[in-house]
Amino acid sequence: MAEAINKKAAIIGGGVIGGGWAARFLLNGWDVAVFDPDPQAERKINEVLANARRSLPALYDRSLPEEGKLTFHDDMAKAVSDAQWIQESVPEQLALKHKILAQIQAHAPSDCLIGSSTSGFKPSELQQGSIKPEKIIVAHPFNPVYLLPLIEVVPSAATDAATLEAGCDVLRSVGLKPLVVRKEIDAHIADRLLEAVWREGLWLVHDEVATTEEIDDAIRYGFGLRWAQMGLFETYRIAGGEAGMEHFIGQFGPALKWPWTKLMDVPELTPELTARIAQQSDDQSGHMSIRDLERLRDDNLVGMMRALKKSGSGAGGTINDHEASLPEPMPINDLPVTGDRQIPQSWTDYNGHMNEAHYVEVSSQASDRFMELVGADANYIASGGSYFTVETHVCYLHEISAGDHIRVTTQLIKGEGKKLHLFHRLINDEGAVAATIETMLLHVDLKTRRTSEPGGVVATNLAEMAKRHADLPKPDQLGRAIG
Amino acid sequence: MAEAINKKAAIIGGGVIGGGWAARFLLNGWDVAVFDPDPQAERKINEVLANARRSLPALYDRSLPEEGKLTFHDDMAKAVSDAQWIQESVPEQLALKHKILAQIQAHAPSDCLIGSSTSGFKPSELQQGSIKPEKIIVAHPFNPVYLLPLIEVVPSAATDAATLEAGCDVLRSVGLKPLVVRKEIDAHIADRLLEAVWREGLWLVHDEVATTEEIDDAIRYGFGLRWAQMGLFETYRIAGGEAGMEHFIGQFGPALKWPWTKLMDVPELTPELTARIAQQSDDQSGHMSIRDLERLRDDNLVGMMRALKKSGSGAGGTINDHEASLPEPMPINDLPVTGDRQIPQSWTDYNGHMNEAHYVEVSSQASDRFMELVGADANYIASGGSYFTVETHVCYLHEISAGDHIRVTTQLIKGEGKKLHLFHRLINDEGAVAATIETMLLHVDLKTRRTSEPGGVVATNLAEMAKRHADLPKPDQLGRAIG
Repeated sequence: MAEAINKKAAIIGGGVIGGGWAARFLLNGWDVAVFDPDPQAERKINEVLANARRSLPALYDRSLPEEGKLTFHDDMAKAVSDAQWIQESVPEQLALKHKILAQIQAHAPSDCLIGSSTSGFKPSELQQGSIKPEKIIVAHPFNPVYLLPLIEVVPSAATDAATLEAGCDVLRSVGLKPLVVRKEIDAHIADRLLEAVWREGLWLVHDEVATTEEIDDAIRYGFGLRWAQMGLFETYRIAGGEAGMEHFIGQFGPALKWPWTKLMDVPELTPELTARIAQQSDDQSGHMSIRDLERLRDDNLVGMMRALKKSGSGAGGTINDHEASLPEPMPINDLPVTGDRQIPQSWTDYNGHMNEAHYVEVSSQASDRFMELVGADANYIASGGSYFTVETHVCYLHEISAGDHIRVTTQLIKGEGKKLHLFHRLINDEGAVAATIETMLLHVDLKTRRTSEPGGVVATNLAEMAKRHADLPKPDQLGRAIG
Repeated sequence: MAEAINKKAAIIGGGVIGGGWAARFLLNGWDVAVFDPDPQAERKINEVLANARRSLPALYDRSLPEEGKLTFHDDMAKAVSDAQWIQESVPEQLALKHKILAQIQAHAPSDCLIGSSTSGFKPSELQQGSIKPEKIIVAHPFNPVYLLPLIEVVPSAATDAATLEAGCDVLRSVGLKPLVVRKEIDAHIADRLLEAVWREGLWLVHDEVATTEEIDDAIRYGFGLRWAQMGLFETYRIAGGEAGMEHFIGQFGPALKWPWTKLMDVPELTPELTARIAQQSDDQSGHMSIRDLERLRDDNLVGMMRALKKSGSGAGGTINDHEASLPEPMPINDLPVTGDRQIPQSWTDYNGHMNEAHYVEVSSQASDRFMELVGADANYIASGGSYFTVETHVCYLHEISAGDHIRVTTQLIKGEGKKLHLFHRLINDEGAVAATIETMLLHVDLKTRRTSEPGGVVATNLAEMAKRHADLPKPDQLGRAIG
């Protein structure tokens, strides 16, 4: 069997940002070539990768593609050859960026886009002196790059629309959310907002109104929770109520203006103010290492983003779209594979393994997938028919841990009339059956909430599937009772 | 049986904020008296309450106390009599607030604290002309008040420490997170940060750099997700890495200064700019009603805050603390009640009822609670012994919907040697058994991950519990097999 040829991303400049980019591409099946003269680059990137492997797949209820190949280079020509995407993440010095971009373009494939991670420079500044200015854009990510979907994409007048759209397609294909910025300005959009808050926060510390911890608390116990899902204007739209945004601005504009008139200058970052901030930050979380904080942050992000998947809001919608584009798993032992996923950290309990409820979550998703396969899909359900689970028997055979990769096969035991009798096996990476879930479902009319016969297509598909599964051996655990 | 006397909160001024306060107290078992001359006050508050009933209990894995009694008054003396907390939420006009605060203090119990929801005024301003200035503080909430835990509590020089601490205790008892602000300043802390972003956002719309939707996307797909859990400084602490905050400020301070020097004045809110913002907001979400938006917001908040419960970060920690303080349920039919909760919206699926996996989540929590009752609690587990579930049989008997109240009883079938055989019943509000979960657990040594005998205390407690349960009738569903 010929090996599939992966796409290739060149990551120019390692560190936390470059490492995040590398992880994002690698865990989405791309080969990644890193160029960084720093002898510590490989260690640093592998540290970021360890975090990413733990959390990015945990966002999804389906497996990501197999990881690509990671290589390190001190030769720019080798790093960028055959690349479909080049990402520059070197320090924020314009002269340095010009030098590196020139080196990249001397060796890169002629049609390859170069995204710059710059948080401050405009694309037209980066393009100065370039042999192909139209291939350089800003693609500004947010830390941790392997989890947060936002990428500010900033074109210049030199960028054509087709190139821009192709670049956005690449970013979307690795689960990112490109936000195209209409006009070039210093610091794009998000950092403008961040710096406004940063400046205000520094004043509050400077004036001894609040400590760093109190400022963080003022954010995370309050409006931070609103912003994670809706942002600023949408929140105010709701605050305005039925009367609408014009009313809101009319009502609150004048009141908001009073404090606006203050603190417009910037506090000087004296050694004293810097030391005060550092000390307060130590008081707040000096008991945790940066690694501990990163993991806490990532677990929280995964948990919140998984919660947003339910409504499809913000980052949840990005994950759903990306998940729908992931490849279908292949059958195992003539059985359809109705689940294929990595186990998130948040699914484990005090015993240090996957909690029993999530076995049934996996089997519930497998039943849904099986229903789709026989035509009882979202459209069918919208038309008023569905299956309800009435009885389930779980045998827990092997422990499953966070990060484990699980596939689910589904054997049709019986699919006649109103009854749908399924047998799910959860198979671990060693090929062992880690759990079995036998389940009986009944077809229902969603209006009356009473049992009913399934539609013709579903009945026919079930009969065909039953024929294919008729000669399979009966599972050992079938019809088990406890005790 | 004598009726328990509830605590009483007086809510002065209805509307969205007053309604949120009313809901927060009411759903935590307080009686609430609302004073508002607006004839629409009752309707408005009931609308907020409907949202709150749907979402506040969904944050918890245990039932909140029984709802208190809600009354409406146009007589201030009746509204505030016997109150333990009075909350003023009238419009942001200092003269009006002075008038209302004087009316309140003329009739209020002499030791009763009055919290003002003001977002702009300092407590010393509110206290001007008061007969008891020391009883007036700022208690500034965030919308939706029934969900977001943050309350900025601002004392003045007139406030003594004991009064302040007693006030914070009241707020904590209804699940809030009081943040005491050290110095009186206009707009306290959070609104200073919000207004900085609001000003910057208005400029971006004014300059046609971004639409309201693009600004919201720049927040919610990126740093909003960081802020919901950690805030600003903690996020930068991580960005600074092992080198620490001083390094971070040294490195990024100068770069951040460039855009700081711009846009320091305030855009004029002309009718044109106001109309542009309103139109962009309509384009963004005009297809949804404010009610739809509120429900989406609340479902997202509940989902994210439930995710934060896992780590105890930010709002998750506040919920965990509050949950631990909730009263224990009473036994039913001589069986211990090992679960007592409302069903969150996020637990339902496309069939419009609780998904099958959450029945096992409820039974898993019931098994945990039962283990605590026989001494296999957190300390016991930390010492190296625990129980693993090896087999579970679920009978789904009645549909369970979002908002339903469920209690769980646990019958000990057998608790000898390594085996723990339990039978859980999920009982709905009509007293019907909505599901049964039979489950077999084995005692394990957490180090070897192999079965082992339980500790002496656990064995003894199980033997005693077995005696008490010996004469109970065997459940119908015991030992069932599927098919």
